[in-house]
Amino acid sequence: MALVVVNVMPKPEILDPQGKAVTGALRRLGHEGFSVRQGKRFEIEVAGEVTEARLDEIRQAAESLLANTVIENFEVVA
Amino acid sequence: MALVVVNVMPKPEILDPQGKAVTGALRRLGHEGFSVRQGKRFEIEVAGEVTEARLDEIRQAAESLLANTVIENFEVVA
Repeated sequence: MALVVVNVMPKPEILDPQGKAVTGALRRLGHEGFSVRQGKRFEIEVAGEVTEARLDEIRQAAESLLANTVIENFEVVA
Repeated sequence: MALVVVNVMPKPEILDPQGKAVTGALRRLGHEGFSVRQGKRFEIEVAGEVTEARLDEIRQAAESLLANTVIENFEVVA
């Protein structure tokens, strides 16, 4: 069992209403000087070894299923 | 400007319907041997230096605002 992480974040040029809401909430709680963007984190347990072929499967899944690549970037962290 | 990341994941004993749905979708797409859990990733841009006091502010915000600590764990990555 090995863990591979896929991080999915809104692209920099895309408005991020959830992140904006969190930034505003922090400010109202007295925490100044923070700018938040909110994305998703997928923790993927891989049965057996994490080979380059398995990573390719995960990249493909990230592209087609986990991220909306029109508005989101992703990174695969093995 | 420095970046601090807060990862928020459902606790291991908590059912994760989104992760289960992704796991099932992967299987239907022909990707076997993956088990997925879905959480949130917050990227926090901090104005100025990331001091221990600033990190404490972020930990406090994570605890009270970003995570629901009844059902989620969080980690702060500076």
